[in-house]
Amino acid sequence: MTSAAEVYLQEHEEELLRAYFDLLRIPSVSALPQHQDDVRRAAEWVAERLRHIGVPHVELLPTERNPVVYGEWLVDPAKPTALLYGHYDVQPPDPLDLWETPPFEPTVRNGRVYARGASDDKGNLFAALCGVEALVRTQGKPPINLKFFFEGEEEIGSPSLAPVIEAHRQKLACDFVISADGGMYDYDLPSVTLSSKGLCACEVVLRTAATDLHSGQYGAAVPNAVQSLVQLAATFHTPEGKVAIAGFYDKVRELTPEERAEIAAVPFNEQQLLERVGAKALWGEPGYSPLERMWARPTLDLNGIWGGFQGEGVKTVTPCEAHVKITCRLVPDQDPEEILDLIERHVTTHCPPWAEVSVKRFPGSARPFAVRRDHPALLTAKQVLRELYGKEPLAERTGGTVPVAELFQRLLGADMIFFAWGMPDNRVHAPNESYRLEDFRMMARAYTRYLEALAR
Amino acid sequence: MTSAAEVYLQEHEEELLRAYFDLLRIPSVSALPQHQDDVRRAAEWVAERLRHIGVPHVELLPTERNPVVYGEWLVDPAKPTALLYGHYDVQPPDPLDLWETPPFEPTVRNGRVYARGASDDKGNLFAALCGVEALVRTQGKPPINLKFFFEGEEEIGSPSLAPVIEAHRQKLACDFVISADGGMYDYDLPSVTLSSKGLCACEVVLRTAATDLHSGQYGAAVPNAVQSLVQLAATFHTPEGKVAIAGFYDKVRELTPEERAEIAAVPFNEQQLLERVGAKALWGEPGYSPLERMWARPTLDLNGIWGGFQGEGVKTVTPCEAHVKITCRLVPDQDPEEILDLIERHVTTHCPPWAEVSVKRFPGSARPFAVRRDHPALLTAKQVLRELYGKEPLAERTGGTVPVAELFQRLLGADMIFFAWGMPDNRVHAPNESYRLEDFRMMARAYTRYLEALAR
Repeated sequence: MTSAAEVYLQEHEEELLRAYFDLLRIPSVSALPQHQDDVRRAAEWVAERLRHIGVPHVELLPTERNPVVYGEWLVDPAKPTALLYGHYDVQPPDPLDLWETPPFEPTVRNGRVYARGASDDKGNLFAALCGVEALVRTQGKPPINLKFFFEGEEEIGSPSLAPVIEAHRQKLACDFVISADGGMYDYDLPSVTLSSKGLCACEVVLRTAATDLHSGQYGAAVPNAVQSLVQLAATFHTPEGKVAIAGFYDKVRELTPEERAEIAAVPFNEQQLLERVGAKALWGEPGYSPLERMWARPTLDLNGIWGGFQGEGVKTVTPCEAHVKITCRLVPDQDPEEILDLIERHVTTHCPPWAEVSVKRFPGSARPFAVRRDHPALLTAKQVLRELYGKEPLAERTGGTVPVAELFQRLLGADMIFFAWGMPDNRVHAPNESYRLEDFRMMARAYTRYLEALAR
Repeated sequence: MTSAAEVYLQEHEEELLRAYFDLLRIPSVSALPQHQDDVRRAAEWVAERLRHIGVPHVELLPTERNPVVYGEWLVDPAKPTALLYGHYDVQPPDPLDLWETPPFEPTVRNGRVYARGASDDKGNLFAALCGVEALVRTQGKPPINLKFFFEGEEEIGSPSLAPVIEAHRQKLACDFVISADGGMYDYDLPSVTLSSKGLCACEVVLRTAATDLHSGQYGAAVPNAVQSLVQLAATFHTPEGKVAIAGFYDKVRELTPEERAEIAAVPFNEQQLLERVGAKALWGEPGYSPLERMWARPTLDLNGIWGGFQGEGVKTVTPCEAHVKITCRLVPDQDPEEILDLIERHVTTHCPPWAEVSVKRFPGSARPFAVRRDHPALLTAKQVLRELYGKEPLAERTGGTVPVAELFQRLLGADMIFFAWGMPDNRVHAPNESYRLEDFRMMARAYTRYLEALAR
């Protein structure tokens, strides 16, 4: 049964796509200073679009860098209030020469829109707005109270997000957050997202001497920083791949049999994964399936290592200093700072006695996030997906970190419901990013149904 | 008792030093292409000096890069024939701003000559020539048959040495080689050098996937090259510092009780070493003293390691590739290629099954060198030192690699006797290289005595 709002979407598709392409043409690359004006232009474009839809209150919330586009349309105190989240900034487009068509010149080929941001997140953000617009044009106003919150710093780690939320707690108050940034498990495999992992990061610096030394003169008697770091870093995991930091798993919420069954129900092809990444075999914590590990088990990842001579050929040097970068992906109820404390203690305890070690903590820690499994807005999202696809949506989790989800939960007490149509092969953050027109249409339709259903 | 030759040295010191300084003024830096003409000029200067002394046959032996200055003065078939080795090229002088006076403007301060090459090796080479000159001027000819062999590529690893020796085996035939490149244990601690270590070098490259991956998406299931390499590289040594490559020590000639006593007789101050290098503690193969390890035990040194993200801050990446550079210092009777075979086997055996590993061997392997302990020319050198210093010379070894010693031994069957006056704080290869005038004088005198004594 096609609603009036859905008919609106069909009839106005050409006009809506034209606006979507206009947004894609603005190179709002938040990471590059030369695009600062473009980022600002994109913010103003989105604000103008909210006004065009009819949102009665629209403003730019200033931050230290790029403004948040904020909008507010309160229709009925008896109805729930949802805050719609998304971002208008995009990743840098390079390497440019790998793009088949220019990144900021949206082009349609084989039912896909190619452009930087086509999917992440301008496509998803704009599709959600199309859903709102269709409801407004056919019913005069949205079916629930809506707040709009579109940031311009997501691709640089959302540095202003916590301060801006904290500064506007009152204004942003809502029952839950709907994220127009996210995706589905795959084509024809709709899903809801139950959790994302937390993150903490540090660098271990190990020193053994004041300078690099001649290996012939000193190598047999003076400690070697690379050898020492290798010896230390090898203690972070058991040979089988379990994290060997004392206390690392203490606060991990174990998966229930129901959750394990839920994850097992998700189609996962190990061979396909191996081929996609070009690996010989999988690896990780024993006792859990690959998907359980990726979605619901914490990790300690060595992101990089360096020390001593790295040039061509041979240099007979005994290095005095070596570094390893570490990030951990965390699950409920691990705490990023506590984990960094454990790493620091481990490093201090396991550092060879002849070496000196220090741990440099990086900002940007994020707590793990999980939505309440019986959250009404989550159950409603599942219901809408079930209707649209005619099948039970999968219960997905993300191994990545979505600090924004945890932030809204912690600062506003609002759970985040991911409701967006990114697909695994959209090449987000890479050359030739694209978004299927089919997904754009599906998402706009889904939003009309979701907001309607939430009103009931 | 001062000989006529020694009187000659005293009386002509000013003139000799002037010539030495002329040689120091030529920036014969073999590593820098812009100094190619200077290197050539230095070769011609040394050839001219041999002619000036009276050497009847002098020529430049061409190589692919810099010529060998060769000279020959055969006086009596009944006398031994010594080949005098040294090199006329020098290390680059940078960092220039750390020099107190310009590197190619020799300056005397507090009884020391400051210049690049003042010690290594122009000072030692020229002092040896002064000894020869003094004998020639006072006796008409040298007391034994002399061949002179001064190369111009020592500071770039002597790439032409093996080919040039092989091409002139007949011409270079000799009973033994005297090296004017080397040093004494310390001021007032004269020494002879019994051995130098061999060398082999390789790079281990480990891969786990086709590209670096997002640690949130893949880190929990796809192997991490840095983690894998750390796990592999930690197996190269026992936690105590012994090399854990199977077979590594099989061919090592164990130190005899006499050799251990000889090494123990050498003054060695552990605290001083720690302070000099800025280390907390020493490290290495258990069961041997630091000096035994440095001089007579083989090592496996990790010269450098790298993989994944090495920039500022955080990058949540699962690296797909990591590298470690290895050199081994070898002792008799280890063979460099055999040791590389053992490393390759170890790496293949110990590489985690989910990773792929390869070993890139570098050229420049050198066998360990040891002189026959009862070599007459060695015993004579000790006798001369005993007379000059009034004390028993120490039996030193070098932890470094002197490929030239092993090459002459292997290609000409001639042992090398190190007879030179470099001192540990001459800052060779560093800014403000210097050479004590006192050592210059002592070396020239010592050569007059040594060549005389060898004739007997």
